[in-house]
Order: sequence, then structure tokens, then C-alpha cells
Amino acid sequence: MSGQGTILVTGGAGYVGSHTVVELLNNNYSVISLDNLVNCYAETENHKPESLKRVEKITGKTVTFYNVDITNKEALNKIFKLHKIDCVIHFAALKAVGESVQIPLTYYQNNIAGSSTLFQVMQNHNVRKLVFSSSATVYGIPQFLPITEEHPTGQGCTNPYGKTKYFVEEILKDVCISDPEWRVILLRYFNPVGAHKSGLIGEDPAGIPNNLMPYISQVAVGRREKVNVFGADYDTPDGTGVRDYIHITDLAIGHVQALVKINEPTFKGWDVYNLGTGRGYSVLEVINAFSKASGKPIKYEIVARREGDVAASYADATKAKNELNWTTVRDINDMCEDTWKWQSENPHGFQKG
Amino acid sequence: MSGQGTILVTGGAGYVGSHTVVELLNNNYSVISLDNLVNCYAETENHKPESLKRVEKITGKTVTFYNVDITNKEALNKIFKLHKIDCVIHFAALKAVGESVQIPLTYYQNNIAGSSTLFQVMQNHNVRKLVFSSSATVYGIPQFLPITEEHPTGQGCTNPYGKTKYFVEEILKDVCISDPEWRVILLRYFNPVGAHKSGLIGEDPAGIPNNLMPYISQVAVGRREKVNVFGADYDTPDGTGVRDYIHITDLAIGHVQALVKINEPTFKGWDVYNLGTGRGYSVLEVINAFSKASGKPIKYEIVARREGDVAASYADATKAKNELNWTTVRDINDMCEDTWKWQSENPHGFQKG
Repeated sequence: MSGQGTILVTGGAGYVGSHTVVELLNNNYSVISLDNLVNCYAETENHKPESLKRVEKITGKTVTFYNVDITNKEALNKIFKLHKIDCVIHFAALKAVGESVQIPLTYYQNNIAGSSTLFQVMQNHNVRKLVFSSSATVYGIPQFLPITEEHPTGQGCTNPYGKTKYFVEEILKDVCISDPEWRVILLRYFNPVGAHKSGLIGEDPAGIPNNLMPYISQVAVGRREKVNVFGADYDTPDGTGVRDYIHITDLAIGHVQALVKINEPTFKGWDVYNLGTGRGYSVLEVINAFSKASGKPIKYEIVARREGDVAASYADATKAKNELNWTTVRDINDMCEDTWKWQSENPHGFQKG
Repeated sequence: MSGQGTILVTGGAGYVGSHTVVELLNNNYSVISLDNLVNCYAETENHKPESLKRVEKITGKTVTFYNVDITNKEALNKIFKLHKIDCVIHFAALKAVGESVQIPLTYYQNNIAGSSTLFQVMQNHNVRKLVFSSSATVYGIPQFLPITEEHPTGQGCTNPYGKTKYFVEEILKDVCISDPEWRVILLRYFNPVGAHKSGLIGEDPAGIPNNLMPYISQVAVGRREKVNVFGADYDTPDGTGVRDYIHITDLAIGHVQALVKINEPTFKGWDVYNLGTGRGYSVLEVINAFSKASGKPIKYEIVARREGDVAASYADATKAKNELNWTTVRDINDMCEDTWKWQSENPHGFQKG
């Protein structure tokens, strides 16, 4: 049964998208998923992406899939005509920080113009409930720790990727002001890592990973030589940068809880929640935990700091706990073990190697 | 002769656009103008807008015109293929603050998606010089006076219109970082008023004017009964709000000076200039000056403050003076006299009636 309603998941074949689809299906939602396949593997453009096939294997349920880009208004219109959608969870976005500095206009077109096209189509079809995949990057350089949802946003977002997240948040706030029928929840992710415990789905970055955990796991599996640790002279317990890593399954469940919240009769306008554990781990702590989980030595080298990096960043996660009835239950060892299971069983990601 | 090069002016039929085209033609630039005609009058969609016909009358020169929307990539591509464009001056935008609160997605689509489409087309045709029509609204509530270009931006922009100006500024900064061949000047206007001294072109707002000067002039000409003065209890000399009004011809000449600057061999990346007089006038001072200029009594009524209004806002205009070799020469009396000439000779704007 799918008594919970029908959710359109944009970017549903991606890392956060696919794990969220699992939890939606587990909670008896019907899922319509769209993706433009630029960041995920499918056998051909007419095939369902491999990540969603695996989601179906995990859950024993079916995901409807469309190969559609969110900038394509006509294609979006067709989907909204074909299906009675109750709520949209909007992940679709380009997400490589470094690439966004190189080709900012592509990022602004995809992430801003695409999002505003999606919102227009929703409005035209009287679908006005949305959960938006935002990021702690909107906080810029933390002015205080832990970071609460009241922390200023948009100041010192140093790259176009981060700005697109901030701009879309602002656009959604304005949409809610313009029409009180809209209900929007912004979810600001800290550092999603890990994989589904089945080892069937996980993060499958194209090219050199931007983030620490996939990089470590590629070193552990022998695809890369060593981890570069960018700075060991920060004002942190061991000198390396501290971040709030969150297990992807905990993060995915946060979206299910956001759906419960958004459907409460008293919910109005927009609200925002940090999704993090509230606890930071240093780069060296993560490397050690991963080494333990994988049983592999992880070679690393301390190199210069990266421009724009901060010493520490972690969430105050109490608002989500109090209002979404949600808290993380998977610790750093779960994150490393599940990443390792995914990586070791799928050394080349979704593509057969 | 048009030895100065060819300038593409987007939104060229509008208020600031048309006055700028006059000054460009006066300075021997060739002008290609495009406009989607949503905010200006043309006899039919195939006719040149009335404002540009008048520009041709004033200057004795021809303006090439295209009825094109900046969100239409194909149409933009055609123009860039047909003409060798040296620089773009980008005015095209929806600009009604109140309307932007009602229909924010339309504003974001037109102003952000449209601008980023324009920039992509420029990039594809190796045109990388741009003067952008920004606004002092990006400063939000002034933290200090006079407002210098170093004043923080994007904080407390209270309406979607203002945010679109701020977002496009940020997009352009990122474009300059991504490709050092780009040269961009952001011009932040204070309060443009007045009209060309010929009385042939001027501001022709649709519906009820949002701004003080066109409102006053419609009262003077008998189209409206009285001016509402929003608050007389501000901390200003006479209690009414103080703003930095700038004559539209001074403002237009600022764009010509920006072109000179952007073509200097040493100019790199982006820079930003306030265009204002550096001096504020109160609402009552403007009403009195207009009454004197028009010889008409101006009925007004003090009403409650408007949400979001500030007591005073005026520019520090020294950077433009020093670096653009530009300063305003038209005072409040010129502003009122020229507005009155335009309004009294064209009581219904460009539309005959």
C-alpha cells in the first residue's frame, strides 16, 4: 500500500536522493523520481539508473523514473499532469564546489533557473509542498559553534555552489510570502557520508572525490595512493579540521520526518532544520575510524591548508530533535563500516568494472 | 561615424535604457537595442517602441531594435551572430518592488534566469564586457551614511526585486573569477528621476507609479488627486524621508563613462560604482521644488510610514568622480523642470490619448 501519498523526488538517482527514496518506500510513500543522469550511471538514457534498480532490490518496491532535467518546463508539466503529486523533495542540483568556480553560469542555470522553473510548474499544478535539499554551506564561515538555524546565511559563501543553495532558500522564502498556501521545509545538511547498510547503494562520485570520506575509501580500496590532509595546524584537538559527519541513512530519515512535519495541519509557510549529529570529528579521527572499520592502513600526508576551509563546523541539531522528532542513531563507526561495505563490494561504484 | 564601437543595450526601450541610448548615440557609439516591450509602448509588436523613435528624433541617428526577451536563448544567439558587439549594457529586468513580492517566481525567472542566459550567450560569442544596471537597494537598510561601495550588500534586501539585483551582482563576480577575460562594471543607482530636456522621452510607468517623482508629476498634471507622504516623524530635518535623487541624464552619462573605464587596458575583472549626487532631498523638499518648477500647487497628505522604508539614504559618489571622471551637474530644480516638461507635454506618456 502507499497510503502516505505520492512524492516527486528530483535528483532521485543521486546519493542523497536514492537513500531518501529507500526510506520513503519503507514508509509506504509512492515515489516518482526524476533525474537528468549527469551525475549517475544508467546503462542507456532509456534505462532506469542503476542506483534506483538497487533501491527497488532493497525495498522490493517500484520507483517510477523519468529522465528529465528540471530546466525543461514542458517535461515537468507532463509529469505533473500524469501524476497526482502530494509533495516534492527537491535534490536535483549540480554539486561540485570546485567545478562551480570554473563554470558558474552552468551552476546558476541548473540550480537557480531549474529550481524556479520547478516551483513555477508546481504552482501551476497546485502542488505547494516542498522539502528542499539545502546545505550548511549557506552559513559561510561559522560565527559561532554549534551552528543553530538562526546563524546568519549568505555571508561569505565563497563559491557559486554554496550561493545557489542560499539563493534558492531566499527564493522559497519569497514564494511563501507571496502565497500562504505554500509549505516549505529547508533542510541544511552538514557532511553526509556512509552508505545503505545493504552495501547496494552509496556515494559514487565522478572523477576525483571532493569529499573526505569517499576519498579515504578509494585509498582503502587501492584506487588512490594517499589522503591529503589539508592543514594540521588548526585550533582543534589534533590540529586537523573538524566536521559534523552524518550517516546518509539518518539524513534520509530526516526527510521522511520533514514530510510528517509539513503535513501537520498547523504547519504554515517555511521552516528550516539542520541535519547533523551535533558532534564533530577531525580528519585524523575519521581516517583512524575508517582504518579500523576496513582493516586497511590508510596512508595520508599533511599538506597546506585549503583556501576557504575553516577549523571546525558542526550543527546544533536540537531543533530537528524537538520539532521533527528526529535524531541521528548511527555513529562514526557505522559511517565507516557502511562506506567500506559499499566501496569494497562496488570498487567502481554503480558501473560494472 | 560610429568609431566608438557597437553596444548592445538590453531593456533599451525603458526609462534608463532610452536615456542611455541617447547619450551613447551622442558619443558616437552604434546601438543595438533589445526589449520585450512589457514595460514600454509600441504601436504593434513589429514596430519600434515609441521611446526609441523619440530617441532617433532627439539624436538624428538610428537605433537597431529587436523585440526579444532575454530568457530566449535562440533569439539572443541570432543577434550576437548578426552583429559584432563590443560591449553589453544590461538594463532588461522587471522592476516593480510591490509586484515582485506578489509574483516572485516571475521576477526570479526574468531577472536571474534571463541574465544568466544573456551572460552564457555573451560567453559563447566571446563578448565579455558588460555594464550592469544595479541598484542601491542591494545595500538594504543603510548601516552608515553616506553609503560607499564598501557598504555590505545583500543583507536585509526585503523584496525579491532587490534580491534579484544582488544575486545578479554575485553571479557576475563569480563569472569574473571563472574567466579573467570578463570585464564587468556594476552601477548602483540611487533614485533616478527627471527626463530628457527635450521633453520627448521620460518615465512612463504603467499603472500607479511606485516612485515619488512620477507620482507628484501625475498629481501636478491632474491625473491623481494628492501625494501620500509616508511618515513625517523620521529623524530628518523636516521629518520626511530623505533620498538621493539623480537626474536621468546624469545617470545615463555615467554609463558612457563606465564604457570608457571598461575599455581602459588596465581594467580587469569587475568594479562597482554608486551613481548618485551624494546629497539627499526630503519628500517635502521635492514636492516644493516640483510645485515651483511646474507652477502648480501639489496637494499632499501625511500618512503612516511604509514598512521597510528608512529615514535617509544617499550615496558617497566620490569613487565614480575619481575613477569614472563623472559627476552630476543637474540639480533638484532641473529634475523637476524636466519631469514637468515631459509630463505636461505627454500627459499620458508615450501612448497618444
